[in-house]
Amino acid sequence: MLATVIHAARDIRVEEVPDPTLSTGADAIVRVVAACVCGSDLWPYRGVTPTHHPHRIGHEFVGVVEEVGADVQNVKAGDFVIAPFYVCDGTCANCRNGVSTSCLTGGWWGSDDRFGGFADGGQGERVRVPLADGTLAVVPGPVADDEIPGLLTLSDVMGTGHHAAVSAGVGPGDSVAVVGDGAVGLCAIIAAKRLGATTIIAMSRHPERQALAREFGATHVVEERGEEGIARVKELTGGIGADRVLECVGTKESMDQALRSTRPGGMVGYVGVPNGGAELPIRQLFGTNVGVNGGVAPVRGYIEELLPDVRSGAIQPGRVFDLELPLSEAAEAYAAMDERRAIKVLLRP
Amino acid sequence: MLATVIHAARDIRVEEVPDPTLSTGADAIVRVVAACVCGSDLWPYRGVTPTHHPHRIGHEFVGVVEEVGADVQNVKAGDFVIAPFYVCDGTCANCRNGVSTSCLTGGWWGSDDRFGGFADGGQGERVRVPLADGTLAVVPGPVADDEIPGLLTLSDVMGTGHHAAVSAGVGPGDSVAVVGDGAVGLCAIIAAKRLGATTIIAMSRHPERQALAREFGATHVVEERGEEGIARVKELTGGIGADRVLECVGTKESMDQALRSTRPGGMVGYVGVPNGGAELPIRQLFGTNVGVNGGVAPVRGYIEELLPDVRSGAIQPGRVFDLELPLSEAAEAYAAMDERRAIKVLLRP
Repeated sequence: MLATVIHAARDIRVEEVPDPTLSTGADAIVRVVAACVCGSDLWPYRGVTPTHHPHRIGHEFVGVVEEVGADVQNVKAGDFVIAPFYVCDGTCANCRNGVSTSCLTGGWWGSDDRFGGFADGGQGERVRVPLADGTLAVVPGPVADDEIPGLLTLSDVMGTGHHAAVSAGVGPGDSVAVVGDGAVGLCAIIAAKRLGATTIIAMSRHPERQALAREFGATHVVEERGEEGIARVKELTGGIGADRVLECVGTKESMDQALRSTRPGGMVGYVGVPNGGAELPIRQLFGTNVGVNGGVAPVRGYIEELLPDVRSGAIQPGRVFDLELPLSEAAEAYAAMDERRAIKVLLRP
Repeated sequence: MLATVIHAARDIRVEEVPDPTLSTGADAIVRVVAACVCGSDLWPYRGVTPTHHPHRIGHEFVGVVEEVGADVQNVKAGDFVIAPFYVCDGTCANCRNGVSTSCLTGGWWGSDDRFGGFADGGQGERVRVPLADGTLAVVPGPVADDEIPGLLTLSDVMGTGHHAAVSAGVGPGDSVAVVGDGAVGLCAIIAAKRLGATTIIAMSRHPERQALAREFGATHVVEERGEEGIARVKELTGGIGADRVLECVGTKESMDQALRSTRPGGMVGYVGVPNGGAELPIRQLFGTNVGVNGGVAPVRGYIEELLPDVRSGAIQPGRVFDLELPLSEAAEAYAAMDERRAIKVLLRP
């Protein structure tokens, strides 16, 4: 089959690789219907994280089950499924606590530890899915083609934006500022509105992303950053800062922006993968009672909650895909996201 | 009148100072019935924070109102009152949000900014209380002498322990570990039990404090620290760590102990005043979805909730006072706490 392989920074190739096969009774084989490129895939693409040898890449996909192992009970051949960006059993103590990203037996796509050998990344024609009962969410009934982008966001970005909002404790009537206008930041706006926030401030400098942010529910857009950005957020929130701030970038600067845009006693929900070695300034947090909560989003647990709203069209996170390419053009998908020509690219095998 | 003055590290004197007088219409003059020494008072005592010139010290007291300004409506002469460890108006946006420690017009005892000139510390015979309507909580009806220690804990340590538990989101059935066996840590145990925690792990090496911790509701005591302490907490919590961990010390080591004793998706509630420049390790938090919430405790807002349980004896935080001295022996009170001969010392003018 064909799958995407990263050879080195800026060297993405779609190559012939061995077909996946069932290696444990808990596996499923899924034919990928749609996959996508994640912001975090750009780290090795840009060389921020080194690529020591060629390896499979990708971790967000939806598809149709082709085959299941003897022990699989929750999914069957023919089911349309959403895979979260990680593998989980759904039954361990951490999964039961809602933190399936810390599953005691789970792991990551494109790795070969723990669950029966190598599990492919999602940017290919097929994937062996370990722990299929815990990992996969079935989408009932027939799935229309125009539903695919929305469903695909449940594998990562929509669930991750939702996690930012849940972690920050967003509730009815809250003021919320969102730092980051990538796909996750835009989905965080959807999530904040869905959870009842009434003032939603999108921090964005890009006109087309500002427009989408407003359509998703942003009531205000702040283009300024740093001190000026903080001052603008305070102007919009009675002088004290936003009740909840959703940090969807992961840099030292974005976290600082988030922490200082939050009112005393408020909470930052963060889902941006931290880079640059930024630590949190405890004395500043202590003095203002600003809390920090979040992390790698346990999106598997959010799929059932969000799925009805995605299918009904009540929320439209699929609109973050502003470019669709065939799998064979994966290299162009990476380049388009790297150069910010696209917010997020959908790949069809 | 007499009041406590710190002249330099380990130089505490009780001296004659001017009587306080009403300087604004919002003031009250309170005759101090009982005051106490706070763990944070030991910082200047030990020279950790420098004392550049002699100044008044103390910030926890209960007493009887002697006189009020023309604008005061909520308290009157003769009322028995509890003063939190700070001054607040009770009406600004931050106070209304429950974060009265960030009051937009408030401040700190022993300082002279913003609210009508100098406001005395609490370790003296009388205090001018600025913003009396917002700052003071009235204790209705006659107050028995044996109620004094419990009521005095509402000015700081009981409310602060409660804040750790509330910030961590302690609820029914939770497992909770408490780092720190000082007065605040012990009160955090009371708070955790009161909020419904069923497994409460006290981390303590001192036999007499362990005994009090057990009386307050601790179900387990862990003497180990560092990796061994973390391993013991995990043994007691199904292998994954405590749902909620209350950090009541403020050092880099204690915060590390707290963060790594928390289960994935759990929360650290912290009230230990941070010292030693420790920052929070964001990548560690991100990977495990451990949140951090807390800060300088807005105890004024907790008094009404906790007061009935203190008066009924349902909780007995007053037992953290294991030494009582006359105000004239304030120097000995500091020495006893510094040398850990006493958990917390009550002073009577």
